[in-house]
Amino acid sequence: MATQPLPTGTRDVLADEMREMRAIESLLLSLFAERGYQEVATPTIEYQDSFARGAGPEGAATYRFLDESGSVLALRNDMTVPIARLVARRFADRSGPVRLAYSGSIFRRVRPQRGQLRELRQIGVELIGVGAPGGTAELIELLVAALDAVGLDRAVVGLGDADLFPQLLAELGVEGAGRRRILDCLANHDLVAIEAEAGDLAELGEAERSTIVALSDLRGGPEVLERARALGGPAIERASTALAGTLDALAAGGVADRVRVDLGLLRDLGYYTGAIVEVYDPAVGEAIGGGGRYDDLLGRFGSPRPAAGFALNLERLHIAQAAEQEAGEGR
Amino acid sequence: MATQPLPTGTRDVLADEMREMRAIESLLLSLFAERGYQEVATPTIEYQDSFARGAGPEGAATYRFLDESGSVLALRNDMTVPIARLVARRFADRSGPVRLAYSGSIFRRVRPQRGQLRELRQIGVELIGVGAPGGTAELIELLVAALDAVGLDRAVVGLGDADLFPQLLAELGVEGAGRRRILDCLANHDLVAIEAEAGDLAELGEAERSTIVALSDLRGGPEVLERARALGGPAIERASTALAGTLDALAAGGVADRVRVDLGLLRDLGYYTGAIVEVYDPAVGEAIGGGGRYDDLLGRFGSPRPAAGFALNLERLHIAQAAEQEAGEGR
Repeated sequence: MATQPLPTGTRDVLADEMREMRAIESLLLSLFAERGYQEVATPTIEYQDSFARGAGPEGAATYRFLDESGSVLALRNDMTVPIARLVARRFADRSGPVRLAYSGSIFRRVRPQRGQLRELRQIGVELIGVGAPGGTAELIELLVAALDAVGLDRAVVGLGDADLFPQLLAELGVEGAGRRRILDCLANHDLVAIEAEAGDLAELGEAERSTIVALSDLRGGPEVLERARALGGPAIERASTALAGTLDALAAGGVADRVRVDLGLLRDLGYYTGAIVEVYDPAVGEAIGGGGRYDDLLGRFGSPRPAAGFALNLERLHIAQAAEQEAGEGR
Repeated sequence: MATQPLPTGTRDVLADEMREMRAIESLLLSLFAERGYQEVATPTIEYQDSFARGAGPEGAATYRFLDESGSVLALRNDMTVPIARLVARRFADRSGPVRLAYSGSIFRRVRPQRGQLRELRQIGVELIGVGAPGGTAELIELLVAALDAVGLDRAVVGLGDADLFPQLLAELGVEGAGRRRILDCLANHDLVAIEAEAGDLAELGEAERSTIVALSDLRGGPEVLERARALGGPAIERASTALAGTLDALAAGGVADRVRVDLGLLRDLGYYTGAIVEVYDPAVGEAIGGGGRYDDLLGRFGSPRPAAGFALNLERLHIAQAAEQEAGEGR
């Protein structure tokens, strides 16, 4: 009799891996709690409307089914939108900051043959009610502490601005399909394709195309902000000033050397505003996690407040931890 | 702006409850690991075929959707079937016992206005490769240790036999809709309805109807096995002998006083064979968990072995723990 197969992108976790992932989860939830971020849980299933209200139609959850009364339910594809919904419902009257943590699975569509997972274990925090740059700096410091706690002291936090490219393209008059393609290239980290896409923008002159390409590839220390400003224009000026403010706030926390400014950074969920981050470790090829500010999201649930958060992918954290341990033994 | 509602049967878990549920989870997973039961995880989503193969069409998962290639996927409605599938795939060559633990959500349809949860947190163990009565006794001892660890030292384990009523009804020639209705009453613990249903079985004489009704209501210490045997017939004789064997095996472990024989016990998932258990605590109205032997299930996945397990409902454990603490303070 044939063994029962598993759907593409799903997997069993056996005892050794599970024990190590539980240890990471427990360590991080303790660290988060020490810093005032208490764990909450939201349902795995919610109304599809809730996800669309938070993240827009493009960010909405994709595994859908009907409930007993014909309403469309969906598996969550993200933790931030449900927690924003929770805060708007349960902490509407709270005037001070709300600090929450979570650990759970989210579900995403996979493309065949890419080795992507449908079910991703995410662990992270949300800081509601504290604006930029102080709230952003608090989160980045916690993110670095979390990476250090897991043994990823070589991991780097890329810091960008979610509004930079949308505003720059608006400033340059790039709209419609061309705008969409440029933003998609950035969200997919496809900096090679950007050059071709920018070249196809017939509405632009050579200097404007160069600005797009050069900006997408600008990353490094605080000095890249000066190089960005030299490219000119109000969108770049605004983002550079905001990023410089975040870096100043970070300097006090002593983690500025773990942050790399990345002006080409863009994340694909439809709620980020201002500062965004993505985490890389030299031992693994893909981002281990990310996050950013979402100052407009709570307002979509009727309780406007500045907010930001980050999530780490538990499986990739675990892979990176093992790889760093191996690399450390080899050094 | 209206707050975003949650679907019936789903809920947010706030920090205090989450912390207490995590403490219970962590305590039980540690206890299970000490006894050799190591945690594994299976996907939240699997092929619907896998659930149907394990539990039969009636036990199959009910939240279904199509994947990218048109296959029917489903949210798991049970942890035992996926773990049986995992063991058949990953431990096919293991000749000795396999001891596994898990903690995760399962998903069930709800009936309106009943306050039922769609998403249930289950924590439990499976013991594969050890038959009755030794394997059953090992599990019941671990179950009692788990209840004690959580502070539920008044909780009682009901012990019945999954084959007793199906075999008795076959012996009496009760088939089709009448059989189904009797078994449904038992699975729903509706002992009042059983009397009416048995009365409607025109094919039976008065003595046979009385046997059904009396047997469904027989519970207590080992002495009820003698009262059952007095009702006569091979089904009752076989089940009584098997239950006596389990009780003997339990006597050595010192937990026999926590076990109450319950001949009317029946569980509604389609894979139980022989001994079945259900856990009750005087502080809460509903069963906190249950389990039993499923000696035929591994064979459905191509790797036949005796097996048994139990699951506790984490939310109800938490409610019972709080209620017992309150009751303890009042004593």
